[in-house]
Amino acid sequence: MKYFNSADLNNLEKRYRAHLINSCTGYKSANLIATRSEDGVENVAVFSSVTHLGSNPPLLSFILRPTTVPRNTYDNLKNTGYFTVNHIHADIVSEAHHTSAKYDGTISEFNQTQLKSEYKNEFYAPFVQKAPVQIGCKYIRDYYIEENKCLLIIGAIEQLHCEAQLLHDDGFIQLDRAQTVAVNGLDGYALAKLQERLAYAKPKN
Amino acid sequence: MKYFNSADLNNLEKRYRAHLINSCTGYKSANLIATRSEDGVENVAVFSSVTHLGSNPPLLSFILRPTTVPRNTYDNLKNTGYFTVNHIHADIVSEAHHTSAKYDGTISEFNQTQLKSEYKNEFYAPFVQKAPVQIGCKYIRDYYIEENKCLLIIGAIEQLHCEAQLLHDDGFIQLDRAQTVAVNGLDGYALAKLQERLAYAKPKN
Repeated sequence: MKYFNSADLNNLEKRYRAHLINSCTGYKSANLIATRSEDGVENVAVFSSVTHLGSNPPLLSFILRPTTVPRNTYDNLKNTGYFTVNHIHADIVSEAHHTSAKYDGTISEFNQTQLKSEYKNEFYAPFVQKAPVQIGCKYIRDYYIEENKCLLIIGAIEQLHCEAQLLHDDGFIQLDRAQTVAVNGLDGYALAKLQERLAYAKPKN
Repeated sequence: MKYFNSADLNNLEKRYRAHLINSCTGYKSANLIATRSEDGVENVAVFSSVTHLGSNPPLLSFILRPTTVPRNTYDNLKNTGYFTVNHIHADIVSEAHHTSAKYDGTISEFNQTQLKSEYKNEFYAPFVQKAPVQIGCKYIRDYYIEENKCLLIIGAIEQLHCEAQLLHDDGFIQLDRAQTVAVNGLDGYALAKLQERLAYAKPKN
């Protein structure tokens, strides 16, 4: 086994450490978060930190880097109260990845990529067309993480759109049927295949 | 597309909603979190919410369900200050899943499964033997999520052990080389294969 202690981690070259720490926690979700400013400018950006937070009420969370530089996603969801989460599937990986390029707030990533926006059911924020799962969220609150100045954003799920063929009778969404990808580290995209579903675990007697 | 609005989600049967909302955010990490009580009783439990929080300093987070019922993991990491995060790989999926069964705090899941603990470099909490990536964390703080009474636990990465064959020259840990699994929903385990690594994105001119 390769071993890094605290001092080793501290002394690593910055980019090396970013790759290492970003990949050491395992696979991450691959989503596009889309918003619309009060002026009507659409924004879409790739995120690998969207995490299930609870199902009753339906909540999710994601992490935003420090707000010391302009963050369109944050400004828009704070000002308008809404954002959407859209699955990245195999066909749009490179377009989705490109949304991480630093564009000025007046430029929509929808105009710089092949990604298309769409509006549904009067929801203020745009969804990403053809995403197999689209989630409309209301901004609830954020928590400031003192250690690294990041924000944990909490969203309530208000709309859930899901391709019918992914949905099982018990509510399970089978992600590999949609070719939803998983993120490995900062820049790796992986395709998964469901191996098994296991029964609810009970103690052995 | 199948569509659920807020009222639909609210009215779903509890278990259906749990499956739906747990799988709608995409793939999740699959880890075993191990702790040891002050009395020396080891505990290990499966978690799908471990998420990278930042690399400088190296931080991760995970979600704990409400503390209204006894939570050995939480008690141990609060009392001793340490926990470990260990990747679940294909060979130990069913043993790992079984740790979600509700055992009394005096019973170690290491004794109820084929999982074995191991100790390294004077770290207080046990690691899971043969996990391809093992992370020793110091408990930093937690945030109480008011909406659903969950806790977000923040840990600082103090030790990182990684099978040498997974590690690229730039610090990237290639998860599929270890058969690290990803979690789909509450009970689905998926094996992924890396498709590509993409270059750092820059704006088009």
